[in-house]
Amino acid sequence: MFTDYDVMIIGSGCAGLAAGIYAARGGYETCILEKEAMGGEMMSRQLIENYPGFAEGIMGPDLASQMLEQASNAGAECETGEVTSIQDKGSYKIIKTTNGSYTCKGVILASGSHPRLLDVLGEKELSAKGVFYCATCDGAQCAGKPVVVAGAGDSGITEALLLEKLGCKVTVVEFMETPKASKVMLDRAEENSNIEVICNTKITGIQGEDWVTGVEVEDRESGEKRVLAVEGIYIRIGLLPNTSYAEGCVELAPSGHVVVDGNMKTTVDGIYAAGDIRTNSPAQMATAVGDGVVAYMNLNHYLNTLE
Amino acid sequence: MFTDYDVMIIGSGCAGLAAGIYAARGGYETCILEKEAMGGEMMSRQLIENYPGFAEGIMGPDLASQMLEQASNAGAECETGEVTSIQDKGSYKIIKTTNGSYTCKGVILASGSHPRLLDVLGEKELSAKGVFYCATCDGAQCAGKPVVVAGAGDSGITEALLLEKLGCKVTVVEFMETPKASKVMLDRAEENSNIEVICNTKITGIQGEDWVTGVEVEDRESGEKRVLAVEGIYIRIGLLPNTSYAEGCVELAPSGHVVVDGNMKTTVDGIYAAGDIRTNSPAQMATAVGDGVVAYMNLNHYLNTLE
Repeated sequence: MFTDYDVMIIGSGCAGLAAGIYAARGGYETCILEKEAMGGEMMSRQLIENYPGFAEGIMGPDLASQMLEQASNAGAECETGEVTSIQDKGSYKIIKTTNGSYTCKGVILASGSHPRLLDVLGEKELSAKGVFYCATCDGAQCAGKPVVVAGAGDSGITEALLLEKLGCKVTVVEFMETPKASKVMLDRAEENSNIEVICNTKITGIQGEDWVTGVEVEDRESGEKRVLAVEGIYIRIGLLPNTSYAEGCVELAPSGHVVVDGNMKTTVDGIYAAGDIRTNSPAQMATAVGDGVVAYMNLNHYLNTLE
Repeated sequence: MFTDYDVMIIGSGCAGLAAGIYAARGGYETCILEKEAMGGEMMSRQLIENYPGFAEGIMGPDLASQMLEQASNAGAECETGEVTSIQDKGSYKIIKTTNGSYTCKGVILASGSHPRLLDVLGEKELSAKGVFYCATCDGAQCAGKPVVVAGAGDSGITEALLLEKLGCKVTVVEFMETPKASKVMLDRAEENSNIEVICNTKITGIQGEDWVTGVEVEDRESGEKRVLAVEGIYIRIGLLPNTSYAEGCVELAPSGHVVVDGNMKTTVDGIYAAGDIRTNSPAQMATAVGDGVVAYMNLNHYLNTLE
């Protein structure tokens, strides 16, 4: 039967683009749907040192641009629109977006994730007024000022190093007893006298009227409370999957992640998922890219059985 | 306890290097063991167009060199030696090689695969005398001559296109009814008047005294036999895992592949596998790289529990 595309991929981050490169090379009419900027999470990344293939690392937007061009060279098309729902009609699927509806034979969900909120008083009120979620995007707004980074995972330490380069004095606040960042990242932070990492500490509120003036913290062991006098906070405490549009179509885990099997197949025939949005994702670029390829290869088997 | 290394990785192809980059960045004393040329299978590849991150593709040896330097920049060491056995001693492992023995706390098996043989009369006798397994390595030996490529998967078609560029008239012989190569590759072969693909055809022998003079084939439908008058044959009919050294240590599938779970863990605590050598590998660079990262991340969890 006729459909607008053979394969539609939701999301243009590294998982979606990897799937797109493979699907287009496989001879399928392929469309990659993106709701915001093409390239997904890569667009807000600085130097990426752990994606294999780049001896000195590569800047996030440069890597995004390489993958986009690679997908385009292979013949994949890109469309802009936010997906609102997916309907499974058996041999075809209907994808509704804010820019119209499409039909296709197979779908790969690769819409990534968004930042988890601290959920404390002041966070919403001072959003974009000193409360930020991406130093690459909004670091300049606090250049030269004292700031807090919430979360001492790799992404939090990366933010801290970037902000320090912008002249900030940085306090990294970690809720858990030990930081989750890799040793190489922690070493860099510890060698830097403008970065301090404090653990086992809860952020209880953000102060300020028109702009952030302080961050309230509580030592989880002693219970001691104090206010860090800073003019900005960058929150990197985890990622939540972008899967609201998939509710009612494929099974989601209680965390919101798309349930997949080892072939990246969802609970619906012809619909696969790849990258951060799937259950048990290691949330690394290299694994998201691998996911995209696995999802495509199994979708390819499925499409072969359709004909 | 003291060991020579924290993490030892067997094989320096893309799976091993990806694991090496991560393990070294994770602060582990890391050693990558290679029996032949560093870079593994990438070293015998031409233009790689489907590894995400390179808009125009990248030559295999160049990609290998980038990944090697990336692992080395992260602090990983490389050693040469063929592994002969691995002994599990619980909290540590002993790796015996042709260049001595090592101890380590965790192991990642990433030693890839080698070509499957046709297993017909003349194949062994004429090996390196017109019988080859890699056009990138040995294509020049048949430049300008008529040749057969055995196997019409992506790798077979890639060989055919390369040989045609070297002035060869190429007949691709596929045992199955239809070629397994991706459409984009097949289209290129079909558009090329110097390449012919014949399917449902069995290769029954290779003729020649000091050098290949013909390839005997049999039409699987009609039973008709004939001899293709060629001066070379390049065999690309699949890959077998390099796992003989792992026998008696980890569980192998009947195919010889290392049995792993979804975390790339083998049947032995502290030993993981990644890439072509594991069961159900999609045998793609992007998935092998993802495997390497997944194997490292789970090995990291294991090592954390040791201390």
